[in-house]
Amino acid sequence: MRSDFYSIARFSALEAFVAFAMLAALSLPAVAEMPATDALASWNEGPAKQAIVDFVKATTDQSSPNFVPPEERLATFDQDGTLWVEHPMYSQVVYCLDRVPALVKAKPELANVEPFKTVMSGDREAVAKLTTHDLEKILFATLTGMTVNVFSEEAAKWIAAAKDTRWKRPYTELTYQPMQEVLSYLRANGFKTYIVTGGGQDFVRVYSQRVYGIPPEQVVGTAAGTTYSYDADGKPILTKDPKLLLNDNDAGKPEGIHLMIGRRPYAAFGNSTGDQQMLEYTGAGDGLRLKMLVLHDDAEREYAYGPAQGLPDTKVGTFTQALYDEAKRDGWTVISMKNDWKTIFPAAH
Amino acid sequence: MRSDFYSIARFSALEAFVAFAMLAALSLPAVAEMPATDALASWNEGPAKQAIVDFVKATTDQSSPNFVPPEERLATFDQDGTLWVEHPMYSQVVYCLDRVPALVKAKPELANVEPFKTVMSGDREAVAKLTTHDLEKILFATLTGMTVNVFSEEAAKWIAAAKDTRWKRPYTELTYQPMQEVLSYLRANGFKTYIVTGGGQDFVRVYSQRVYGIPPEQVVGTAAGTTYSYDADGKPILTKDPKLLLNDNDAGKPEGIHLMIGRRPYAAFGNSTGDQQMLEYTGAGDGLRLKMLVLHDDAEREYAYGPAQGLPDTKVGTFTQALYDEAKRDGWTVISMKNDWKTIFPAAH
Repeated sequence: MRSDFYSIARFSALEAFVAFAMLAALSLPAVAEMPATDALASWNEGPAKQAIVDFVKATTDQSSPNFVPPEERLATFDQDGTLWVEHPMYSQVVYCLDRVPALVKAKPELANVEPFKTVMSGDREAVAKLTTHDLEKILFATLTGMTVNVFSEEAAKWIAAAKDTRWKRPYTELTYQPMQEVLSYLRANGFKTYIVTGGGQDFVRVYSQRVYGIPPEQVVGTAAGTTYSYDADGKPILTKDPKLLLNDNDAGKPEGIHLMIGRRPYAAFGNSTGDQQMLEYTGAGDGLRLKMLVLHDDAEREYAYGPAQGLPDTKVGTFTQALYDEAKRDGWTVISMKNDWKTIFPAAH
Repeated sequence: MRSDFYSIARFSALEAFVAFAMLAALSLPAVAEMPATDALASWNEGPAKQAIVDFVKATTDQSSPNFVPPEERLATFDQDGTLWVEHPMYSQVVYCLDRVPALVKAKPELANVEPFKTVMSGDREAVAKLTTHDLEKILFATLTGMTVNVFSEEAAKWIAAAKDTRWKRPYTELTYQPMQEVLSYLRANGFKTYIVTGGGQDFVRVYSQRVYGIPPEQVVGTAAGTTYSYDADGKPILTKDPKLLLNDNDAGKPEGIHLMIGRRPYAAFGNSTGDQQMLEYTGAGDGLRLKMLVLHDDAEREYAYGPAQGLPDTKVGTFTQALYDEAKRDGWTVISMKNDWKTIFPAAH
């Protein structure tokens, strides 16, 4: 009952009132009969699903030694490769590449400057070979320099239209259904869910509510500074600076969590070495903590990559053997996409 | 009813359930009879109280053109001089000065180095004359270099014991009762309340829940970076760096709001030039926005200071004539402590 009521209370006080009024009128028992595990319908029975259910039971049962007061229930999720597809390229990088023509139109002098010249050539193989340093140049050029409002509008327009080339579906439909269920299940049990992403904070905030039910203020990500000034009409504006404030990867994740949230998560989910420190930091807290890593081992339904499976390392989502060993040693749970998930994506709309 | 139920729902789903079960059992109407304005019992009738009530009505009434969906209801409050006493010295500065003896004990070489030497001398007049640069040295030396856990423990111990010299009461009891009522009233109407303070984010987070009912993740403040590392036992730690990430004053307030929250407030409360840009930024949004400034014009019950009243400028809470003029021009509401507030502080425990 507790979990069901929580889920109601989060959404609408009015709905909750109506629900209780109806229960009272019908003299029905307030306790829902559905087993809590149905909340994870896309998960196969196994240690991963069990770890989630056991954690929620232990932290929400007042008689449990691991009970966590509702206000401290906090769960953090990496995004790329943990909540949605990151392969073969982070969707935000695709966004930045897609922005280059407009950028060159506004600043024609960039047409003959690398790496913009390569992007404008349309040569996909050459683009795929761009160095990290080249990509950073493109990211700064396409993610900064405009007001935060203009950026949000451009990003919203793109995310509404852009599609993944393999599935021909919007990126926002390529979230992992089993992870969506974990988000909902945790929230239904009083947990505040956060995204803690190496991706751009402003970018993810554009769609986080719609796609994950996570409001902008619960998105922590890589962040550039802004500068406050006034436009020609004297109206206040915030302009995105090419100055990195928070690199929300690796050690930057616990540092970002401390900066933006100020307390330690009870549960953390990731899929790569970029999440290692977030899971370590989560695990270093008192009591029961849930630490989970998504392993991309499903070449058929999604992708299989990373040294932990003897597969080549890639630019994205590196799941190394060392990370795998740390997970085993410290009691983190590895989620096998292939074995633990009945379905990968939500049904098409 | 709406507002009352919201206030219940925020605290405990279980309590809410019990409350409704009782209402149903007793066949009482669920609609509370108390007028909404009773929530502001410490406010005299007048334009300031009216502005708050009108704003809440307009933003929560679904038939109003200024209705704001619950998830977008966001209100930001400066702390020092807006929610509690800031005169004659910010309590966090008192904390830092109080920490100097322990600092000098740990680093004896500082005993003969200024400004630590002056602080150790106990000469209050000399301490009062320290420059901003001197104070910064003291702040960095006493607020950084330790783990975030050690800092929180030290700050919590101090805030539990330290007392204001004039009222002989803990600083945490010198919050403004009328502003506590505004916080509760807004929350009861579905607003998420944030502190946006020039003070240290980590410092205010130590007591924000207990003192204001505001959780740590809803405190935005001046923030130093942290560094993630491992202690001698291999346990992850976060150490506070002497590196300023966010100076949450002046333009830093809207910049901090964008960084930490990611959306524009519908209501903002301040008391000095340090809050000017936050109120401008709030006012620049669409629809109805509430912008309020607390004027310290009550020398008897609290303090009267600031050029706007022809009084000398001070190091804290500068309410200039220019700010007063901007408030009048742009429809901000000035709260007179003397005329608008029936009481200043909550009753002693």
